[in-house]
Amino acid sequence: MKANKTLCLYNDSMSNIFYSLNSINTILAKAKPSKGCIVTSATLADKLAWAIKEISSADIEIIIVPDGEQAKEWNELEKLLAAFSRSGLDRTSTVIALGGGTIGDLVGFAASIYLRGIRYIQIPTTLLAQVDSSHGGKTGINFHGYKNQVGVFGMPFATIIDIRFIRYLSAEQIADGIGEIIKAGLIKDKSILSILKKETLASLPSSPQLLTLIKKSIKVKLSYTEKDFKDASVRQLLNAGHTIGHAIELKYKISHGRAVTLGLIQELAFTESLGLTGSSVRINLVKLLEHLRIKTDTTMKADWSAIMHDKKVGGSKILFPVIMKEGKSKIVDIDLNTLKEFVGKA
Amino acid sequence: MKANKTLCLYNDSMSNIFYSLNSINTILAKAKPSKGCIVTSATLADKLAWAIKEISSADIEIIIVPDGEQAKEWNELEKLLAAFSRSGLDRTSTVIALGGGTIGDLVGFAASIYLRGIRYIQIPTTLLAQVDSSHGGKTGINFHGYKNQVGVFGMPFATIIDIRFIRYLSAEQIADGIGEIIKAGLIKDKSILSILKKETLASLPSSPQLLTLIKKSIKVKLSYTEKDFKDASVRQLLNAGHTIGHAIELKYKISHGRAVTLGLIQELAFTESLGLTGSSVRINLVKLLEHLRIKTDTTMKADWSAIMHDKKVGGSKILFPVIMKEGKSKIVDIDLNTLKEFVGKA
Repeated sequence: MKANKTLCLYNDSMSNIFYSLNSINTILAKAKPSKGCIVTSATLADKLAWAIKEISSADIEIIIVPDGEQAKEWNELEKLLAAFSRSGLDRTSTVIALGGGTIGDLVGFAASIYLRGIRYIQIPTTLLAQVDSSHGGKTGINFHGYKNQVGVFGMPFATIIDIRFIRYLSAEQIADGIGEIIKAGLIKDKSILSILKKETLASLPSSPQLLTLIKKSIKVKLSYTEKDFKDASVRQLLNAGHTIGHAIELKYKISHGRAVTLGLIQELAFTESLGLTGSSVRINLVKLLEHLRIKTDTTMKADWSAIMHDKKVGGSKILFPVIMKEGKSKIVDIDLNTLKEFVGKA
Repeated sequence: MKANKTLCLYNDSMSNIFYSLNSINTILAKAKPSKGCIVTSATLADKLAWAIKEISSADIEIIIVPDGEQAKEWNELEKLLAAFSRSGLDRTSTVIALGGGTIGDLVGFAASIYLRGIRYIQIPTTLLAQVDSSHGGKTGINFHGYKNQVGVFGMPFATIIDIRFIRYLSAEQIADGIGEIIKAGLIKDKSILSILKKETLASLPSSPQLLTLIKKSIKVKLSYTEKDFKDASVRQLLNAGHTIGHAIELKYKISHGRAVTLGLIQELAFTESLGLTGSSVRINLVKLLEHLRIKTDTTMKADWSAIMHDKKVGGSKILFPVIMKEGKSKIVDIDLNTLKEFVGKA
C-alpha cells in the first residue's frame, strides 16, 4: 500500500509580498476578480479611511467584523460567510483582509472554505501581523474556548505590508510585534538583534530601519514555512518562546508578542539548565529588552495544564525548539517530565 | 510579479482504495492514529452494527450525526467539531466516516478543518457514494439554503468500498447510483454501458459484475480528478448531466442520481440540437434505462434561474461537458443564450 501522500508546493515566497498599498492595482490586474470586498473592523474603517480609499477608488463593498479576538469566533465565521454569499462572491472573486492578526486569521479561513476556496489578499495593519501572522498560510478561529482549534493552511494570493500603518499603533502594540521580531533574530538571523540594539520602543515606529527589520523577520519565517508548510518539522522552530509563552498569554490575558517575550526568557533558562544554551543568550536578551524599554514581568508563570493542552499530541516527549546561540536553533526531542519539573520550580 | 501558484500533487489513486472492510487493519497500521472515532447515523449504527464490529473490535468511540442532507448543515458541523474536541482528538488522530455521501461530505470537511486538518477514512455505504462522492476530495456542507457552498478540497487517507453494503439499499438508492455509473460510461468508458445492458435494477445488487462496474466508474472519476484536483478544467466533464440535472434535483426534490439521469437525457438532446452529438446516443440511453427498469419522468424540467445560480461564475459563456459519442466527451464553450433558449423550449 502506498501512503496517501499530499505533496504541496506552495509558492510562499517573498515575490508575493508587496511593500506599498499602491501595488494593489498590480495584484488585482493579476487576480482579475469578478467581484471584490474589503473585510475590516468599524474602528479600522474609520481610522484607516485613507487606506480604503487608496485600495479602491471604485465602489468596493466593505464588510465589518469585530475588533480583536472576538472576530475569531464561530458565529462571526458564519456571519462572514453569509456576507460573502449575500454579496454574490463567486469562485473568481477576491477578498481583502484589512486588519491585525485576528482579522487576517478569520478572513483567510472564511475565504479558504467559501465555495471550497476563493482568493484573498492580506493587508496586515499591526506590526505583529506584518512580521508574523500574515505569512505562512495558517488561518483559523478559536472554538469552544480553545485557540485556533479550527482552520486550514491556505495561502493568501498576495500580502501587502505598508509601514504607514505602524504610526497608528500604541506602544503596547509595537512591543507586541517586537516579541516576534526578537524571536526571528534569536532562532535564525542575529543581525536583527544588532539592529534592535540601536532602537527603543519609542524610536522604532519612525526608524529608517523599520522596514529592514520587518523584511528580515518575514524572511526568517518563510525560510521555515516554505520547507514545512504543514507544520510537521522545522516549522516548529517558529514556536520558540511559544510553549511557555502561550500558556502565560492565556493565564494573564496579555498580548501575544509580550507573552512570547516572557516565554523566550523562561525557555532560554530551561534549555540553559539542560546545558543546551549558553547563559549569555538569556542575559543579552534581558539587556536588549531593558534597552528597548520593554518591561518584562518575570513573576508571570505558566501553568503546566495549559502547556499540556496546547501540546496537542500525545506521548512522553515534546519536540522543543532550542536556541543554542543567537541566530542558531534546532528542534530537540525533550522528555516532558524535565519540562514539567522546570515549570513547577520556575 | 509571480502569481501565487498552488501546485498540489495529490496521490488520489486507486492504490488508496480498498475493497474489503478487513483492510482497515492495514490502513490503521499505516496511519498509526493516537485515537480514532467512527462517525455515522443512528440508523446505520443499528443496521450496520456488524460492520462497526469488523472495523474495530476495540472500544472505538461512535459519534452520531443525522441521516440525509440534514447532516450537511452548519449547526451539525459545529456539533461534530465539538464532539472531536470532547473526544480529545489530536493531530495524529483518524476519523472514520461510515455512511452515504452526505455523511462523507460532512465528516471529510470537519476532519479537514479540525486542528487545520486531521486524517479521515471514507467508508461509503451507498452505491452513489461508492462510485462518486467518496472520491476526488470534494468535501463540504450546504449553507443558508445553497448546496455545497462551504467546504474544502481534502483527500481522505483511504477509502474502503465493501459491496456487502449494497444489499441494504432500496431500489431507489440503486437507481441513484446507476445514474452516475451511466455518466461515467458515457463520458469515458463505453464498456460500462455494455455491462449494464446485461443487468436490471433488480439483478445488479447481487450481480457478479457489480464490483467491476464500481471499479470502472471510480477509474473514470479519478482519471479527471488526478489531472484537475481543484476543478478548474477537465474535471468539469464529470458534470455531464449535472447542469440541467442539479436544477431538476432542486425543483422536484428527487435523488441526485435520478436527476443526473434526466439531466443526461436532456443535455444530450441539447448538444444534439447543436450538432455536437449524434442522436443514437440519446436513443440508446433511453433504451438502456428501459431495459434496466429505471423509470424516467421526462415531464420534469429545469428552471433557468436555478441553472444560473448553480453556474457560480459570471460571463455570457458556459463551459459545457459535451458527449460526442458513447465513451467520448469534451468541454465546449457554449453561449449561455443557446442553452437558455433550449431550456425555455424544453
